[in-house]
Amino acid sequence: MSAKVAIIMGSHSDWETMKEAELILREFGVEIHKEIISAHRSPELMLEFSKAAKQSGYSVIIAGAGGAAHLPGMVASLTTLPVLGVPVQSKSLNGLDSLLSIVQMPGGIPVGTLAIGTAGAKNAGLLAVRILALQNSDLAEKLERYRDRIREEALSKNKDLL
Amino acid sequence: MSAKVAIIMGSHSDWETMKEAELILREFGVEIHKEIISAHRSPELMLEFSKAAKQSGYSVIIAGAGGAAHLPGMVASLTTLPVLGVPVQSKSLNGLDSLLSIVQMPGGIPVGTLAIGTAGAKNAGLLAVRILALQNSDLAEKLERYRDRIREEALSKNKDLL
Amino acid sequence: MSAKVAIIMGSHSDWETMKEAELILREFGVEIHKEIISAHRSPELMLEFSKAAKQSGYSVIIAGAGGAAHLPGMVASLTTLPVLGVPVQSKSLNGLDSLLSIVQMPGGIPVGTLAIGTAGAKNAGLLAVRILALQNSDLAEKLERYRDRIREEALSKNKDLL
Amino acid sequence: MSAKVAIIMGSHSDWETMKEAELILREFGVEIHKEIISAHRSPELMLEFSKAAKQSGYSVIIAGAGGAAHLPGMVASLTTLPVLGVPVQSKSLNGLDSLLSIVQMPGGIPVGTLAIGTAGAKNAGLLAVRILALQNSDLAEKLERYRDRIREEALSKNKDLL
Amino acid sequence: MSAKVAIIMGSHSDWETMKEAELILREFGVEIHKEIISAHRSPELMLEFSKAAKQSGYSVIIAGAGGAAHLPGMVASLTTLPVLGVPVQSKSLNGLDSLLSIVQMPGGIPVGTLAIGTAGAKNAGLLAVRILALQNSDLAEKLERYRDRIREEALSKNKDLL
Amino acid sequence: MSAKVAIIMGSHSDWETMKEAELILREFGVEIHKEIISAHRSPELMLEFSKAAKQSGYSVIIAGAGGAAHLPGMVASLTTLPVLGVPVQSKSLNGLDSLLSIVQMPGGIPVGTLAIGTAGAKNAGLLAVRILALQNSDLAEKLERYRDRIREEALSKNKDLL
Amino acid sequence: MSAKVAIIMGSHSDWETMKEAELILREFGVEIHKEIISAHRSPELMLEFSKAAKQSGYSVIIAGAGGAAHLPGMVASLTTLPVLGVPVQSKSLNGLDSLLSIVQMPGGIPVGTLAIGTAGAKNAGLLAVRILALQNSDLAEKLERYRDRIREEALSKNKDLL
Amino acid sequence: MSAKVAIIMGSHSDWETMKEAELILREFGVEIHKEIISAHRSPELMLEFSKAAKQSGYSVIIAGAGGAAHLPGMVASLTTLPVLGVPVQSKSLNGLDSLLSIVQMPGGIPVGTLAIGTAGAKNAGLLAVRILALQNSDLAEKLERYRDRIREEALSKNKDLL
Repeated sequence: MSAKVAIIMGSHSDWETMKEAELILREFGVEIHKEIISAHRSPELMLEFSKAAKQSGYSVIIAGAGGAAHLPGMVASLTTLPVLGVPVQSKSLNGLDSLLSIVQMPGGIPVGTLAIGTAGAKNAGLLAVRILALQNSDLAEKLERYRDRIREEALSKNKDLL
Repeated sequence: MSAKVAIIMGSHSDWETMKEAELILREFGVEIHKEIISAHRSPELMLEFSKAAKQSGYSVIIAGAGGAAHLPGMVASLTTLPVLGVPVQSKSLNGLDSLLSIVQMPGGIPVGTLAIGTAGAKNAGLLAVRILALQNSDLAEKLERYRDRIREEALSKNKDLL
Repeated sequence: MSAKVAIIMGSHSDWETMKEAELILREFGVEIHKEIISAHRSPELMLEFSKAAKQSGYSVIIAGAGGAAHLPGMVASLTTLPVLGVPVQSKSLNGLDSLLSIVQMPGGIPVGTLAIGTAGAKNAGLLAVRILALQNSDLAEKLERYRDRIREEALSKNKDLL
Repeated sequence: MSAKVAIIMGSHSDWETMKEAELILREFGVEIHKEIISAHRSPELMLEFSKAAKQSGYSVIIAGAGGAAHLPGMVASLTTLPVLGVPVQSKSLNGLDSLLSIVQMPGGIPVGTLAIGTAGAKNAGLLAVRILALQNSDLAEKLERYRDRIREEALSKNKDLL
Repeated sequence: MSAKVAIIMGSHSDWETMKEAELILREFGVEIHKEIISAHRSPELMLEFSKAAKQSGYSVIIAGAGGAAHLPGMVASLTTLPVLGVPVQSKSLNGLDSLLSIVQMPGGIPVGTLAIGTAGAKNAGLLAVRILALQNSDLAEKLERYRDRIREEALSKNKDLL
Repeated sequence: MSAKVAIIMGSHSDWETMKEAELILREFGVEIHKEIISAHRSPELMLEFSKAAKQSGYSVIIAGAGGAAHLPGMVASLTTLPVLGVPVQSKSLNGLDSLLSIVQMPGGIPVGTLAIGTAGAKNAGLLAVRILALQNSDLAEKLERYRDRIREEALSKNKDLL
Repeated sequence: MSAKVAIIMGSHSDWETMKEAELILREFGVEIHKEIISAHRSPELMLEFSKAAKQSGYSVIIAGAGGAAHLPGMVASLTTLPVLGVPVQSKSLNGLDSLLSIVQMPGGIPVGTLAIGTAGAKNAGLLAVRILALQNSDLAEKLERYRDRIREEALSKNKDLL
Repeated sequence: MSAKVAIIMGSHSDWETMKEAELILREFGVEIHKEIISAHRSPELMLEFSKAAKQSGYSVIIAGAGGAAHLPGMVASLTTLPVLGVPVQSKSLNGLDSLLSIVQMPGGIPVGTLAIGTAGAKNAGLLAVRILALQNSDLAEKLERYRDRIREEALSKNKDLL
């Protein structure tokens, strides 16, 4: 079975955040490909990767970047696959710059943007699963069970309050 | 053919923004359902709608709301379908409140968030098309042509600069 | 004597903040109920809890949440009891997201919002006491004494300046 | 029947916003008192008003102010009645200054803060009604009907979408 | 010689910041009075202090506070002496709330506001000296020497760069 | 009698804001000098003006500027007179840039900063009067009367509420 | 003589802002080339343009864009010429998104960023002239005269104050 | 060979940031001059330095400062050389104040602004190299190799992901 979700990121330091996407996708049994692709340091690779993404067998691309975060939007302009963007928390502005650079795309080129940081990376993985589940009833069922489980976990913590 | 994308919004005044989503989806020939569903004024309807969304034949839900914008996140917690959120521009804080209320979801419940205002509504429609195109080669082809067309349009404006 | 004030929160990690509400309510001898109720992970429980809140004997509901903080507003839409919201300090945006998600409610559904973090949790407890004191002269008197005491404490610190 | 809710504001120009509080309170048949009391231009009046508020027969005080908005917090420090704060939209910073000046109160002195602008003023009125309804079953019933009505109104607008 | 500059602050924890004002004033030989006066916990004391400030022999009042920082503005409304405000750095919003609460005063009641934190406290002391120097040629001369000294110090650090 | 307060501003367009300072100073009978002195377009003039300010007979300098507003801080570094800064409302960032450029001065060089826009300009004039009144009992008395008058005006508007 | 400065922009609507760059460059007699090149709608053209920029005879590239403004940073990653970025004022966030998307570039890929809006466009032109003047004494001399002229203009407005 | 790029900064504490500019310039073999020049503590030195900068043999000036960061803009007003500004991360507002104080210059006086903190300092050095390379083919070639190298380094980190 070929890779389904590509997780790309602007630099190696983003991996600390983006590995949450891998963790959740693995939990759902989704095959992933992960790669450092910098919009700014390797623009040709970004172009090549994006244009070949569909033929490479990816269904969804998750792209994480921080600061002036151009990777998600640029990839979205070079493919017609759904692109999900993860704003990595930046040092000086706490990820507000990353968020605005990713989410404020002009009409015509959509990037589905998730929360700043690790919660966003995890949710990018989950949104990819929700998308894949539209044509995979097994994944759809796993999503139902996942939802049940996180509800149970949340509620089970009530005993710790006492 | 049954409805594919549901466009819901918190109040009638959001329609001015959200109709951009309808326009683009119609352009791609995607069937839509549109409905005012307020997280705060009709929470039971929101619950009912969300839980029945899959059986109602929707594949993607686009939810727009402004201010303390809870609709996209709440719907995402009540369905396992992909949910796309559109921050409607608010009066006092220009949509920054809408954006943060939608995008900063906790790990476990993803909302793919688009830009503030009409560009975001249009892009929510386009991201829905990208998702549907994963299993519809006709839509995939239309996306390629759409991309070609907006490129042509952008470049054709160059003559106006002279 | 039945429970008077319910303290609910979106996740167990919010307890570090929300316990300030319990502390102050206990200091005033107000009976409390505390529970983890996630708007996003246990929406049905939230619905159930909110709709039964009056019959459960609560007079005021204090709800704390962080990030895209939907709990206070959603509970306020499901009960007619007074709801007080506490924005829990978030990791990336320092609670600005929590604050805007809670306070910017649309006309029709009020949430009385307190400060970000522990000061807000303590003040939510105190505002609940002020509300209960409207029909409880014993609490009203305790509030007067509390005010005297914090004044004394503030002034007594003057000797530490020398 | 004596006055129940006092609506005070820092300047006459705030009335454009604060009249929404009066409108909703009148709709619920709650008696109101309205007065311009400036924390900065008439501090002694503010002191006098606040200290006498309980004896004047008020149960709840709604205070609106803009910019460096000190009125709600100062009144809350001078009475033990519940105080609700309405951030009036300011000219240069769109009410962000008003909001932070009102909501970020230190532990010990609570102000239940509502949204910036007219929605906040309306909701301050509604939160006052919710508080009064704790000891007035007639108001409690009206609140249920109000909630039903705004739900109906929201949903009835659906026909305008077609 | 009677006290010249009063340094007041909202709580004991502000002293860590405000002691910079004392340090610089002592360096210039200006007599100071320091006191914890909380706008919210001891409003009557604040009123009393402010109204008697001129008779108490103060020429300038330096007031520091954090969060919803009402002390400087309230004191300015209760005296006609020059009031200088120091925004103490707050925990969640880094002093942006303190700054806006102090600086955004309405027309009629001025507060000369300095930078957030210790630099602001030091500069409040220096601005007080500049004001006192208008009628004290000794202080005026010391200000010239101070300026020369900080220039020398800045430049002398150049050797550390090598 | 020689000029007492200099009102300077970065560009002619700032006059719309800064004339409020002139108006209030004239109301108090304080002699003023007004001049366009751009930190960026006429730096030598700024230097000259600032260094000669004391000999020119000024007691206080009011400096208004917008955007990257350097005038108040630079003048403060070139004179030992008290300098008051007025952040002029800027086009894109509503004066937040002006405010931060003026108020966030490093330790050593104080600028007493007022509110953004016309309220700030008026208050700069009033703070100058408060400073001058320290050595002018006539001005001190006028300040008392001014305070009485704005209180009366605020309260007289109460009849408009009815 | 071949073109020296290229002015590119993300969409036709940016021209209203960017024409200020053309105006000032024409004033200095610098040859320009202007073109709409969208990072998102015509990424291949952007790549082509950027890689050929040096051979095309450009010395400096001025790139303007709004919202999630990726054009300046992407061009800077594809050429080694100096790239100057102009944040175009956006509709919802007033250009703060444009500014952060352009200026917060990661180490390795510089974009010299100017102010939001027309002032920034004009200054991009002027910075380009300053760069070109390093090897063109005629331009250097014109810059001196330009500086003299804007000083004169600023000061001549003084007569309008009277 | 005479010095080419001057690196100046407002205080010694900025060196921790600004040394990144020196590092990269040394890597390219560009001669530098570094000096602490405070706009506020040594304004005359700033004036002198700036006016003599061209004759001193500098081609580009890199100026770093934090908080109310006036150095880059003031130097730009005193020379016609290209000036690059580096916003040093400030303590309370994380460098947002530094950024706005530097970038929001009025039309007429350009400062090419880089990112907040060390990335910005490094990029200021690189932008200076890009400018110098316009008349130095050796530097131009080194820039090509530098770009190749950072691409290689980014991609080589891919093996660490496995």
